Amino acid sequence: MTDKKIRAAIVGYGNIGRYVLDALCEAPDFEVAGVVRRSAANPPAELAGIKVVEEIADLGHVDVAVLSTPTRHVEEHAEKLLAAGINTVDSYDIHSSILGLRERLDTVAKAHGTAAVIAAGWDPGSDSVVRALLLAAAPKGVTYTNFGPGMSMGHSVCVRSKAGVKDALSVTIPLGTGLHRRMVYVELLPGASLDEVTAAVKADPYFASDETHVIQVDSVDDVRDMGHGVNMVRKGTSGRTPSQRFEFNMAINNPALTGQILVAAARASMRQRPGAYTMIEIPVIDLLPGDRDELIKHLV
Amino acid sequence: MTDKKIRAAIVGYGNIGRYVLDALCEAPDFEVAGVVRRSAANPPAELAGIKVVEEIADLGHVDVAVLSTPTRHVEEHAEKLLAAGINTVDSYDIHSSILGLRERLDTVAKAHGTAAVIAAGWDPGSDSVVRALLLAAAPKGVTYTNFGPGMSMGHSVCVRSKAGVKDALSVTIPLGTGLHRRMVYVELLPGASLDEVTAAVKADPYFASDETHVIQVDSVDDVRDMGHGVNMVRKGTSGRTPSQRFEFNMAINNPALTGQILVAAARASMRQRPGAYTMIEIPVIDLLPGDRDELIKHLV
Repeated sequence: MTDKKIRAAIVGYGNIGRYVLDALCEAPDFEVAGVVRRSAANPPAELAGIKVVEEIADLGHVDVAVLSTPTRHVEEHAEKLLAAGINTVDSYDIHSSILGLRERLDTVAKAHGTAAVIAAGWDPGSDSVVRALLLAAAPKGVTYTNFGPGMSMGHSVCVRSKAGVKDALSVTIPLGTGLHRRMVYVELLPGASLDEVTAAVKADPYFASDETHVIQVDSVDDVRDMGHGVNMVRKGTSGRTPSQRFEFNMAINNPALTGQILVAAARASMRQRPGAYTMIEIPVIDLLPGDRDELIKHLV
Repeated sequence: MTDKKIRAAIVGYGNIGRYVLDALCEAPDFEVAGVVRRSAANPPAELAGIKVVEEIADLGHVDVAVLSTPTRHVEEHAEKLLAAGINTVDSYDIHSSILGLRERLDTVAKAHGTAAVIAAGWDPGSDSVVRALLLAAAPKGVTYTNFGPGMSMGHSVCVRSKAGVKDALSVTIPLGTGLHRRMVYVELLPGASLDEVTAAVKADPYFASDETHVIQVDSVDDVRDMGHGVNMVRKGTSGRTPSQRFEFNMAINNPALTGQILVAAARASMRQRPGAYTMIEIPVIDLLPGDRDELIKHLV
């Protein structure tokens, strides 16, 4: 392939950023422009040979920025980058706020000839594509998305942001029919109150609608496990024929899948007209590298 | 909703056409223009109140034609309709010939400002979307699509076209890892030879690569069952993380799902620029009726 490679920057380098780097390095059509961090000093060993900067402008030309920051910092980064002529992708995961984010980024992107693919992790993200497809296949019926058991990165980051919390891990337990229990393991700072932390967690929109238990542990590291799962079930009616049954299951390393989907979405961003898109608004073929005719031949 | 409804014609009225009619009648955004058959005389009872014609021109304005003919007649119908300014959708199911069909119909569609969505059943079709999505989620690995147990409409139609066959039913049995056995039940015409029919079936591209057994029965009706199933499995690597596991299962009424997907694809055809598309080339949201913001809010 003599096609020009897509130059991607990783913005933020925590749990997800590491796996985005893996996925970019393995992708045949990407080139890593570098990593943008708050501090470029003392990068971790695996970044040897990768340019690490504090300002994305120091990476030269960048086609697309893969936002690997906590969800709540996505919008400020995306707005600046899109306005600077750089496509963005993110795995923004607050379901109820996606539509607003899309609307605001769409305006910025269209004004600057760039494209954003938002909420492009696995849920929201690839699961959303399956949910939309199953609704098309059986328009009347109920879809249940059951998560876990597994650690929720978004929920864990949320708990870590609470006053008095040194480290935290939120594990999602599926109760069936789309209901979940949140088991939150917290390591507290000296003098912090478990009751106050518990109240703050339960009041957060991330947790407010689920059964939530906050448990103090000596070491969050001892309970950490990156595995996660999904069981999505739809029983519905196609036309006038009832009891059509569909099921989608995954057992995955959570940040690894998020990183991979982000990279696929970064590729897709290069193929969209200016604007902001969720994954259900882009053709799945745009997520894939390689010759389109070959893809159609092998996948359809 | 005051939006103008999409006027759809059903071209061909056999097994699939019946279910297309169901799906069109249940869709909030469609209006049935009528049914096109080789003979408009003596329509079945359920077509009372539906216009039945031999020429589509007799239906007045038609936005999209849902081709419910055998696969091998799809291309001739689609070419004529696309050239006449009518979008088409089909569930063409010979995997190895899809790319060629797409190329030829793309030329006709672009020349006449129309759109075709091809191979839009469940496999090829909705399964193709899942296959493409799983490849994006774990680029290295193997996907196995296991079909059945269930009747294959395409394979049954193929056997019925052989000399000496009065009626036939081809049942697909999954052997795992994407391998299948074909159990073909045939009712023969007087004087026909089972050996000759068996040879003709086994030589057909539909059957040539599978273990095929042809069994003579007194009545194909007695073994008929519209249920079908899929079990699609992928184990692959996301980035550099192996053993990511994905599974998609369906247990469905075969023509009912085909009819429903065809109607969803007919809707999507109205939202594409001129050309021919497989389902992996169109955004899944285009398959769905209703307000796009509401869909994003509920599905993403």
